[in-house]
Amino acid sequence: MPLKLFELVGTDETRPFSPFCWRTRMALAHKGLGAESIPWCFTDKAAIAPHQSDKVPVLLDGDTAVVDSWVIANYLEDSFPDRPSLFGGAGGRAMARMLNAWGDIAVVGGLFPLIVADIPGHLKPVDAAYFRKTREARFGKPLEEVVAGRDKSVEIFRKGLDPLRLTLKTQAYLGGDAPNYADYIMFGGFQWARVVSPFRLLAADDPVYAWRERLLDAFDGTARKSPGYEV
Amino acid sequence: MPLKLFELVGTDETRPFSPFCWRTRMALAHKGLGAESIPWCFTDKAAIAPHQSDKVPVLLDGDTAVVDSWVIANYLEDSFPDRPSLFGGAGGRAMARMLNAWGDIAVVGGLFPLIVADIPGHLKPVDAAYFRKTREARFGKPLEEVVAGRDKSVEIFRKGLDPLRLTLKTQAYLGGDAPNYADYIMFGGFQWARVVSPFRLLAADDPVYAWRERLLDAFDGTARKSPGYEV
Repeated sequence: MPLKLFELVGTDETRPFSPFCWRTRMALAHKGLGAESIPWCFTDKAAIAPHQSDKVPVLLDGDTAVVDSWVIANYLEDSFPDRPSLFGGAGGRAMARMLNAWGDIAVVGGLFPLIVADIPGHLKPVDAAYFRKTREARFGKPLEEVVAGRDKSVEIFRKGLDPLRLTLKTQAYLGGDAPNYADYIMFGGFQWARVVSPFRLLAADDPVYAWRERLLDAFDGTARKSPGYEV
Repeated sequence: MPLKLFELVGTDETRPFSPFCWRTRMALAHKGLGAESIPWCFTDKAAIAPHQSDKVPVLLDGDTAVVDSWVIANYLEDSFPDRPSLFGGAGGRAMARMLNAWGDIAVVGGLFPLIVADIPGHLKPVDAAYFRKTREARFGKPLEEVVAGRDKSVEIFRKGLDPLRLTLKTQAYLGGDAPNYADYIMFGGFQWARVVSPFRLLAADDPVYAWRERLLDAFDGTARKSPGYEV
């Protein structure tokens, strides 16, 4: 039975976003696995409630529902041990946990205030209203005010990427000579931004930019083929 | 031939500090290896110049000199493959590179301005003068001004540890159920601070505090037995 993946989309069902769904999509590609996409919108809570989740990604493997990108990565690693490893051993699996936390904070959390106002335009009216209301409550101000001055505040985001940048000066990927799940953790955030926002997050001479380019081309350009902005 | 390790000390040769030397000392303990300590002071450049280094740690294995804590960790992993693994596989070794960069920036770089003024008191006069001159040039102000207000600025340091903290809420060590080199990367910074400064870096209810306690006790209390402050 084919795998199925609930993925966050807006008005364009061919344009999945969500940093966490992209982590899973890249992990599936790494394992050489396809998954039937089930487009899912923010307010469509009822569709995933039976799987004990209110967020995506949700992976369905027959009768098994797997919730949360980190749990899904571990599920794929354990369920398909003969496919290329996502973690490269027990040490990598353990260390990826902290890289996952760093990716959530420095990448996803760091770029969110830079692109948040670009997201509602990609959503259906009901989802746009939900998104604006919940996110403006979180930030305590209108989304347009959150992104105001982003040409300057992007410098803080870029500086925060130093641990990633320094690493990429010594090796091609966080996984070493080839990418592994550590790379997909970070890349998910950049791909999310690329899909929804024309804002330029990275300078073209940044090693992080070159690394992102390589990941856009990985797996026959899976990520690059997804509609997005040229950034 | 026994291993030998150049370790940074001040007036007390039994009190090695340096976050990088402690990474190596813990890595040696993890491998079940001892090393004869060669006490080394900041201005003693001549002692390590023959080994093509101006910094410690420097590990001597017979005629081989290995320079830089990261290079030493890899050397130990490759030279003693039958001993407990520092990285837990190729994936862990690759991912530890980024954790090493994060440890340098967020832990070592984060706590340095909180403890720097406590260091000269542990040094011989010639080293204290060298240390003060070079570090005041780096900060652009007297060391006492750097640490002024640390009761407040420590909060920024603590907040910066969130990726470590979040991870330790889900697993006992960065290495999983047991520590590995990822833990020693971070712990080296805390042990450095403990040896030279009475300043309290961590709140007692912080999961990072409990993790540090466990590492102080590891390997028969190797780190705890080293003279230091109760913090």
